[in-house]
Amino acid sequence: MQTREDALSIFALGGLHEVGKNMYVIECGEDIVVIDCGNKFPDESLLGIDLIIPDITYLVENKHRVRALIVTHGHEDHIGGIPYFLKNVNVPVYATRFTLGLIELKLKEHRILRESDLIEIHSESVIQIGNMQIGFFKVNHSIPDCLGIVFNTPQGTIVHTGDFKFDLTPANNERPDIHKMAEIGNKGVLLLLSESTNAERPGYTPSEKMVGENLDAVFQKSKRKIFVSTFASNVSRIQQVVAACEKYQRKLVLLGRSMVNVVKIAMNKGHLIVPKSMLIDARDMDEFPPEKVAILCTGSQGEPMAALSRLSTGNFRDVEVLPEDTIILAAGPIPGNERNVTRIVDNLYQLGAHVIYGSGSSSGMHVSGHGYQEDLRLMLTLMKPKYFIPIHGEYRMLHHHQLLAESVDVERENIFILKNGDVVDIEQTIARSTRTLPSGNTYVDGGDVGEMEFVLRDRRKISEDGLLMIIIPINIQEEKILGEPEFISRGFLDQNFAELRKSMKQIALQTIHELQQANRNSRNAMKKQIKRSIAKYVKERTKKEPMIVPIILEI
Amino acid sequence: MQTREDALSIFALGGLHEVGKNMYVIECGEDIVVIDCGNKFPDESLLGIDLIIPDITYLVENKHRVRALIVTHGHEDHIGGIPYFLKNVNVPVYATRFTLGLIELKLKEHRILRESDLIEIHSESVIQIGNMQIGFFKVNHSIPDCLGIVFNTPQGTIVHTGDFKFDLTPANNERPDIHKMAEIGNKGVLLLLSESTNAERPGYTPSEKMVGENLDAVFQKSKRKIFVSTFASNVSRIQQVVAACEKYQRKLVLLGRSMVNVVKIAMNKGHLIVPKSMLIDARDMDEFPPEKVAILCTGSQGEPMAALSRLSTGNFRDVEVLPEDTIILAAGPIPGNERNVTRIVDNLYQLGAHVIYGSGSSSGMHVSGHGYQEDLRLMLTLMKPKYFIPIHGEYRMLHHHQLLAESVDVERENIFILKNGDVVDIEQTIARSTRTLPSGNTYVDGGDVGEMEFVLRDRRKISEDGLLMIIIPINIQEEKILGEPEFISRGFLDQNFAELRKSMKQIALQTIHELQQANRNSRNAMKKQIKRSIAKYVKERTKKEPMIVPIILEI
Repeated sequence: MQTREDALSIFALGGLHEVGKNMYVIECGEDIVVIDCGNKFPDESLLGIDLIIPDITYLVENKHRVRALIVTHGHEDHIGGIPYFLKNVNVPVYATRFTLGLIELKLKEHRILRESDLIEIHSESVIQIGNMQIGFFKVNHSIPDCLGIVFNTPQGTIVHTGDFKFDLTPANNERPDIHKMAEIGNKGVLLLLSESTNAERPGYTPSEKMVGENLDAVFQKSKRKIFVSTFASNVSRIQQVVAACEKYQRKLVLLGRSMVNVVKIAMNKGHLIVPKSMLIDARDMDEFPPEKVAILCTGSQGEPMAALSRLSTGNFRDVEVLPEDTIILAAGPIPGNERNVTRIVDNLYQLGAHVIYGSGSSSGMHVSGHGYQEDLRLMLTLMKPKYFIPIHGEYRMLHHHQLLAESVDVERENIFILKNGDVVDIEQTIARSTRTLPSGNTYVDGGDVGEMEFVLRDRRKISEDGLLMIIIPINIQEEKILGEPEFISRGFLDQNFAELRKSMKQIALQTIHELQQANRNSRNAMKKQIKRSIAKYVKERTKKEPMIVPIILEI
Repeated sequence: MQTREDALSIFALGGLHEVGKNMYVIECGEDIVVIDCGNKFPDESLLGIDLIIPDITYLVENKHRVRALIVTHGHEDHIGGIPYFLKNVNVPVYATRFTLGLIELKLKEHRILRESDLIEIHSESVIQIGNMQIGFFKVNHSIPDCLGIVFNTPQGTIVHTGDFKFDLTPANNERPDIHKMAEIGNKGVLLLLSESTNAERPGYTPSEKMVGENLDAVFQKSKRKIFVSTFASNVSRIQQVVAACEKYQRKLVLLGRSMVNVVKIAMNKGHLIVPKSMLIDARDMDEFPPEKVAILCTGSQGEPMAALSRLSTGNFRDVEVLPEDTIILAAGPIPGNERNVTRIVDNLYQLGAHVIYGSGSSSGMHVSGHGYQEDLRLMLTLMKPKYFIPIHGEYRMLHHHQLLAESVDVERENIFILKNGDVVDIEQTIARSTRTLPSGNTYVDGGDVGEMEFVLRDRRKISEDGLLMIIIPINIQEEKILGEPEFISRGFLDQNFAELRKSMKQIALQTIHELQQANRNSRNAMKKQIKRSIAKYVKERTKKEPMIVPIILEI
């Protein structure tokens, strides 16, 4: 018999129809468990916005029922929203050793580390929360210490894969728990949530070892300095750079704040082993010949303030790119970053360097951390779920993941392509999706956190054609205009403004005069009419539509 | 003996270290000939700018010596700047039939068609300008009627390739003039200018015929409507869509203004043949079963207002995308457009359509119009130039083109990698690059054409954190403040502005008071000090840095 404690609800507050701000929620009876809390970076239309995080209204309203945040791994799109979440819903955070290291860094920056409750887990941990027994399995990805999660509930087993690929020859020898996954599948999986990032790509993801082999080849033949730029969190790749340095007796310099920070965490937590004498300071580089030095640096995405960008324009203190140096971009550009990356490549070539770059794995210096179609099919085959929710991806990725699931015999009607907020309710092991919770984007802009629709609309308008202010001083006692209207513009016209100002003054005065004649001189009528007549004139004369701000100044 | 009339100078005013706004110049003695005059589309940092065109200061200053504008083909990055150029330097424009058709359209929009002097040429035309005899050769590209140019000068032959690939099985059967090119090369080429767009890509560019074969396969099996989105100017591709419609007896609908316009020009000029009864109006589509209709539409780059985008969101009158319809994106996304394109793909999948898309030629529905490395090597081999200037590309493309030239035995010291404005002077058949002419970007923003650096700087600043105005009314006779300062913001804070305003008022009044005490109450000192104290306070309180505009209003 179905009871209240058995009720299962599953939904996402972020991560569906998008890549980023992952946040998935499992409710079992009265207990709510949250999986991941990521951020997303704004595109260029979100002028001035620093970050996007999930709208957590539902969780705040139900915070007395939220028992835990479980984090699958330490990438920004899975941990970047945690400080904002904990400030509102302070629950225990469960994550592996390395992931916790990165979370701690973040909480320290937000000055809430002390009041946070962080609990270290590993792949053999078991957590009991209400009716749920929660276990884990190891998966490969592009950062150490990643987990998939198994929720054993009264109605059956729910599996969340986290981000994963099957790398049978991982650089760190941490193989995926395939046997454990097979066992879980054999016992029966009611619902699988699996990530969809590479559902459009045929075949298997290449192994991280491939990058190591190509790095080795370059280290072997290079006669000058070698720069390798990659994600600081890709510890396996960094380990392979260390291995090449060891083999070819190069000293290693770390450049960039996040590279230094993350390498420190990785070494402390035992995920990265660097021979003591290998690391040197940038200022000591000159003591070694160029063929005995390698540099690991941030900025592989073309970030303008990161190490690689500054190196490419000769703006890095102590370190210089010289002719015949080799620069390896050991990371594919994330969609949207291509132009920034190629700008850096151009600059590096102009310095006379050899540059090894390319999109995706075409350069041999990058492999994806996300499983391709065959990896995804393997996961679906191992888990044999009754129900399936493709997660973590834009719509076309979810759609292709659905086709993959059908190809390994998941019933089409048992696959749910959801939007953020759409709930799948499971009762008596039957799943249905009929209701939707509030969800959306919360913007972080400096100290401000919220919707900011008005602010963004104004910024967009002004960024197009600038802004034109008309200040009309009015004597509040006598209800008459004090002097002439004043016009001030920003971001509007480059030239001929003085001339335009003259005609605009006449138009404004004429408009006021007409309104007064018609006895329609309320503040609002005046503002509206002046705005309209000035806008019309400006558009005719300049073909532009600046934001027009009439200001009635009462004195 | 070298005479003034023999002097040769070659330079670019656009097209080097960039993809776009191509404009190359050949000076022979007193005569100046310009090749192409393109535009470039602004990236997101150029807020509100409509177009970028070359800075033509040098040509305007020397307009009495400019004899002709020769146009290689009709793409925007080769013709988009022509109206602005002719308004300043009205010289005869030489181009092929189809290219002239597109230029006429542009001049009509700018209302200068009547006063322009357009001269039709073809691959066998010969033009004499001063000491130069100018001939042409046919090349393949992704638009009809493309030319390479041969300048026979007293010092030797200069060849400009235009944009090209070698397509030995072109869809329109217009093969490249390989024999003519071989002959030119055999006679001796002093200087080659060759385009570099795909200098990074190994191999040969696939033939346009490949797309035709893949289109045919989709037309054969599709049971519902087929939409094909491509560049309107890619007439060969459109011809292949027409062929598939003919074979599988589908009617054809044209959607989008540029598709309708360009197809009309192509049909009029004889470059496109469409059976009379094939074209139908969108409003008559319902008279035919869906498996008997195909639609050619604009918007393959994800342009938000173009046909495909509107179809994907159900906002196109008369035409609807329905489940099981097939949509073919027969064009690769230009760098920077990826996100807009994938957004459309997502929407189309949500409508239940089949979508065929992919980057570059991976979908089989697009091939590049620009030669890959082997095409470029073939051109270099045919021309056997003494000197070589790689053109049309960002720095890394020029660099790779240089390596290709070296691989076919062009001497390294005879290759010039130039910037826009860098001049190669040839005297007694010896080439040197020692001087640079003014060059750069001219921005078009509504009716304004110019540099606009101030305007852009303001727009950027405001787009980040908005704008905060402080108006301080001052009695000009008595030199005292009339009432309280007024604060007005746009694009700044979403919430808590009222509260902030209160403290800012106090700070402003306090600042003014202090200045008056110190007898430093000039307008400028007051503005500067108020700006500084308000900025400091705002940054502390909100972590933001809006543009602050203090206004002293004299009444």
